[in-house]
Amino acid sequence: MNLNYVKEIAKWMQSDRPVAEVREELLNYHDRDIAFAIESLDGAARKKAFQILDEERLADVFSYFKAPLEYMDEIGMERFAAIVSDMDSDDAVDVLEELDDATRKRLAPLLQADARKAIRLIRSYDEDEIGSQMTTNFVRISQGISVKQATRSLILQADKNDNINTIYVSDGERHYVGAIDLKDLITAREYDDLEDIIVSSYPYVFAEEKIDACVDKIKEYAEDSIPVLDEERRIVGVITATDITELVDEEMGEDYAMLAGMTEASDLDETTFQSMKKRLPWLILLLFLGMGVSSVVGLFEQVVAQVALIVCFQSLILDMAGNVGTQSLAVTIRILMDENLSLGEKWKFIGKELRVGTYNGLLLGGMAFLFIGIYVTAAKGKTLAYAFTVSGCVGISLLVAMMISSLVGVLTPMFFHKIKVDPAVASGPLITTINDLVAVVTYYGLSWLLLIRMCGIHG
Amino acid sequence: MNLNYVKEIAKWMQSDRPVAEVREELLNYHDRDIAFAIESLDGAARKKAFQILDEERLADVFSYFKAPLEYMDEIGMERFAAIVSDMDSDDAVDVLEELDDATRKRLAPLLQADARKAIRLIRSYDEDEIGSQMTTNFVRISQGISVKQATRSLILQADKNDNINTIYVSDGERHYVGAIDLKDLITAREYDDLEDIIVSSYPYVFAEEKIDACVDKIKEYAEDSIPVLDEERRIVGVITATDITELVDEEMGEDYAMLAGMTEASDLDETTFQSMKKRLPWLILLLFLGMGVSSVVGLFEQVVAQVALIVCFQSLILDMAGNVGTQSLAVTIRILMDENLSLGEKWKFIGKELRVGTYNGLLLGGMAFLFIGIYVTAAKGKTLAYAFTVSGCVGISLLVAMMISSLVGVLTPMFFHKIKVDPAVASGPLITTINDLVAVVTYYGLSWLLLIRMCGIHG
Repeated sequence: MNLNYVKEIAKWMQSDRPVAEVREELLNYHDRDIAFAIESLDGAARKKAFQILDEERLADVFSYFKAPLEYMDEIGMERFAAIVSDMDSDDAVDVLEELDDATRKRLAPLLQADARKAIRLIRSYDEDEIGSQMTTNFVRISQGISVKQATRSLILQADKNDNINTIYVSDGERHYVGAIDLKDLITAREYDDLEDIIVSSYPYVFAEEKIDACVDKIKEYAEDSIPVLDEERRIVGVITATDITELVDEEMGEDYAMLAGMTEASDLDETTFQSMKKRLPWLILLLFLGMGVSSVVGLFEQVVAQVALIVCFQSLILDMAGNVGTQSLAVTIRILMDENLSLGEKWKFIGKELRVGTYNGLLLGGMAFLFIGIYVTAAKGKTLAYAFTVSGCVGISLLVAMMISSLVGVLTPMFFHKIKVDPAVASGPLITTINDLVAVVTYYGLSWLLLIRMCGIHG
Repeated sequence: MNLNYVKEIAKWMQSDRPVAEVREELLNYHDRDIAFAIESLDGAARKKAFQILDEERLADVFSYFKAPLEYMDEIGMERFAAIVSDMDSDDAVDVLEELDDATRKRLAPLLQADARKAIRLIRSYDEDEIGSQMTTNFVRISQGISVKQATRSLILQADKNDNINTIYVSDGERHYVGAIDLKDLITAREYDDLEDIIVSSYPYVFAEEKIDACVDKIKEYAEDSIPVLDEERRIVGVITATDITELVDEEMGEDYAMLAGMTEASDLDETTFQSMKKRLPWLILLLFLGMGVSSVVGLFEQVVAQVALIVCFQSLILDMAGNVGTQSLAVTIRILMDENLSLGEKWKFIGKELRVGTYNGLLLGGMAFLFIGIYVTAAKGKTLAYAFTVSGCVGISLLVAMMISSLVGVLTPMFFHKIKVDPAVASGPLITTINDLVAVVTYYGLSWLLLIRMCGIHG
């Protein structure tokens, strides 16, 4: 990639050439590279850069800034408001949400009326509703006009709107009636019927749909934009392909964080305290759940005291069970997110996970039986019978633990999904605890039964 | 979302209306919905559907099929080739890659020459190179023509190409010179200078760049398409916004799968055997690593035999260490993926992770010391001194294990990144083992020192 562009831009911004010439030159660069160049400058040079660029260009550049608010003082409140007014409405909302209430109240009256209206609309939706992610930057034409009129209307609106690849059509009452692919409009002849190129069953979402319920469907259409309708079927905004990339990224990032036992995704710039806050909840829960497991292990203290050797393999069984459970959990979370399973498909899926757990358990349990038997005979100098009774306990416990862990890993997120809780909260730590309990009880129970009760082995 | 569209389409396809009327009607629906409707039909109805739609429309529909090859026999080899020839080149490649070699050899000569050329070009790149993901479906104009000529050239090319939002400009030797935003072309006046609206430093990638090295940069530009250049700086294709969504989805999906101890992401339709194959490698490795940990625990057999109570808290310490390690690991993998850290930033990041681990360790170690002390006194009827010596061992071990786990969780993926291995392979199981070892040695070592050597406690 072209990191050099950023350096070139920075050089232009600090040059002594006339402002008009530099501004002209900067038209040749991408807004994102301009943003990165400005971020790399020091205070004085940055102030100059803000003077070189006009408000319209700065509005485009602003959407790429990591922390746009930092520049509010340098730019001045009034100009800042003008820039935000010129931004895509969803990007403007992102900037405003970072402001504290007092500053927002001071800034709001300075915004242009139409920007204020768009921002208010987007902010009226909950953050888990798709309406909160839309932009009001789209092109709309009326039904019943000619191809020529439609083209003229597009040209007029294109000046203010970037998302022109799909043009939306509404009727006299502003209800959504369909979409026109820009390509079809461009290649249409002047006297073609506009009606013929309107796709009247073009997909849409309602603004109040939950993001996690519709993001995968939107993604599947692989479109440049999908219209967002209010409850009266009027187009209020669009979700663009780049919005979709962001939403997919965020949704996966959250599942990923949950799987790792964190409440939300981390980034490089957060403070130590912010990092701690994201990690402590699961850790504290795990501590108390772990104490529960400890007290169950405590029930087997006598078994352990009599055959200390078996303790060696506790961590092996628990880790294996935990890992198998996490595998099932991870697969189940993604599948619950991506697909709407029928009851039959659910049973089939549970069956498959159980089969995978069982076959893997048979294989690994068998390997453990063999290798641990050999190890105990050779390294600990025990008899073959003793060694293979111990390794038998390990092998059978592995099989049982892996079967049950698979089931727990698939049923727990399904249960959470059913009660409308994000299945990702059934994350690692919770699954770990359940599987630990199962594994510990199986292993020590079996050891007690086989080693002590049946074979009378001690120490 | 509009699931009803799929049912409406299926009804149209099975209706007795004249083919021309149905075909006309189906123009009102989105290709994706048509694809879903066809997938929902049985053999005979589907055959009819394939007759209703012409090859150009089927080409668009085909990119949404889950298993397009299943329909090859129903459609016939020759017509299938015509459809694939009409598809976006990257989608056509996806179809062809699913074919066995023999069928591909039979199909290839039936493809149109330009499609065959585009497919060969895309397939010439390795699957981890960005060139393998591009489409050759883009609009290119020559430098030095007028706005009017550019518009005419666009209209001619738009008939065959969907990605018209950004128009690429090349010079006499076909070298890339920049890009034009379609919006700027549409709003330009007939006698404006085309040169003025060319963004000459529009970002690009080279076809041979590695996907994981450039996908985040491409994402950041938030563009509808980014041009792909060959080593001589000629445009050979573009990466579209929907490609980027797919790439981000895949990349995150792989990290997610790795974190869960799987070699790659799973989907609903894979067989039990395929699922097993993705999960067994890490499980088998974990089994052997786990046996290593077991033999280390074995060194403390005498400690355990003398103070069986301490075994109760082994799972607690190991789970906590494992979870802290996974948290650090998960954060580090994402940050290594997203950012190019300087050496200073790396040290800062390692320092922060260590601080997070230490503070969390102090907090949780303290809680464990207190609560476990009380528990051992109350539930096990031991003296206060004995109970708090045991809980002291647990608390200190927790602190040490969490500090070291944090470090391991951040240093292991950094090491893998350094030696150019995907840091996600430093996944859960590997980290778990290292942390198990650290935790076991700390805990039993400390117990031996404090309980047996210093206090002379037995049983």
